[in-house]
Amino acid sequence: MANPTAAMLVIGDEILSGRTRDSNMHHLAGALTKHGIRLAEVRVVPDEPAAIIAAVRALSEAHDHVFTSGGIGPTHDDITADCIADAFETPIDIRDDARARLQAHYDATGMELNESRLRMARIPDGAALIDNPISAAPGFILRNVHVMAGVPVIFEAMVASVLSGLTGGDPILSQSLRINLGEGEIAGELSALAEDFPSLSIGSYPFMKDGIYGTQIVIRGTDAAGIDSAMTRLSRAFPDDAA
Amino acid sequence: MANPTAAMLVIGDEILSGRTRDSNMHHLAGALTKHGIRLAEVRVVPDEPAAIIAAVRALSEAHDHVFTSGGIGPTHDDITADCIADAFETPIDIRDDARARLQAHYDATGMELNESRLRMARIPDGAALIDNPISAAPGFILRNVHVMAGVPVIFEAMVASVLSGLTGGDPILSQSLRINLGEGEIAGELSALAEDFPSLSIGSYPFMKDGIYGTQIVIRGTDAAGIDSAMTRLSRAFPDDAA
Repeated sequence: MANPTAAMLVIGDEILSGRTRDSNMHHLAGALTKHGIRLAEVRVVPDEPAAIIAAVRALSEAHDHVFTSGGIGPTHDDITADCIADAFETPIDIRDDARARLQAHYDATGMELNESRLRMARIPDGAALIDNPISAAPGFILRNVHVMAGVPVIFEAMVASVLSGLTGGDPILSQSLRINLGEGEIAGELSALAEDFPSLSIGSYPFMKDGIYGTQIVIRGTDAAGIDSAMTRLSRAFPDDAA
Repeated sequence: MANPTAAMLVIGDEILSGRTRDSNMHHLAGALTKHGIRLAEVRVVPDEPAAIIAAVRALSEAHDHVFTSGGIGPTHDDITADCIADAFETPIDIRDDARARLQAHYDATGMELNESRLRMARIPDGAALIDNPISAAPGFILRNVHVMAGVPVIFEAMVASVLSGLTGGDPILSQSLRINLGEGEIAGELSALAEDFPSLSIGSYPFMKDGIYGTQIVIRGTDAAGIDSAMTRLSRAFPDDAA
């Protein structure tokens, strides 16, 4: 596929301990697919510098874009910005432009921009800021890494803002077909179909509903005519069971 | 921490395309924490041999246990078993014990154990089978890698069966405290607390409810008395706002 590839890095002990159910991965996956960017890998790591730095370097090298979520707040476990700077050996300090955004936000809300909150203005040299329409503390873009908040409502706003500035590939299209047969009954035909349409991704997802075994087939790719042909052939192969 | 560490590998295009919202990670995270095993990393990769093999090798080397989900069904995109065998350069073929389980299941349900379904009896040499109480097709354990189904109800049954056979570490305990102040107000105290209790993990999760900014603090670790002390100090530090 000619589509750009992306990786996501989810940062946070709370996901790995089972305390919090991550929702950012699913959101980003859908948004990237719509934008014609293929999400090729996700990693979840704890709030530990060595783990974050190693993952950032590996993912940044292997993919066109990297998106991180989590660890950019004001507390001791918010270490993402410093780790990104470390990963690229870039200096980091409180930056005036980020500080000004925080100052305006706290002035408006009557809260104090104290030392802890000032940590959120630590931005690596040369990074571009990402707007935070909810709580002002910005994300940032350094090289091909987009650093965003973990709080879902802020993460989602930042994704929308970032994707509008990225060139996607051809839209990744999909069609699906429900077949009221178990995967094992249709696997042979699916395998032949996958061989004949190597540019398409053909996924098969079993379900059981009302006591009936069935399979949802999803065909994805950028070739609309190819997807149509493959779907037509598939529904003709199972004329009595395709819904 | 003296607790064993684990990694999870989620295998499947459907997660990365945004079609399916993974729930197995959250389930496994909670189950491991209860069992005293620390989930230290999760990766999500597509149905591509090179990606699966590289991830299995890296995770198996870095952690005490690896748990995979997805890709062990009967269709062309179910390639996990072969990739695990490749990763460890272990021969793989249809194994009689796995075939017997499938045969009994399909005999009982009046379905045919055809060539596609027989793929689910492909098990690497020397692997131990993991029971599948739902649809018979077994998972397996090769070295420190536990290979399980992606369908959540089967995954969860396999996790329960596998964990009963694994020695966990000390239970990972946690206590939480709600403080009706924004993270930025309490970050200084939290940071000092984290320094004074280096064996504990102190997490801070902001929320906004009914127009009030608040923070949920979660203190985790295996030292029950330490957690009690840290919690007592924290609630005394914010006597008017800790709930």
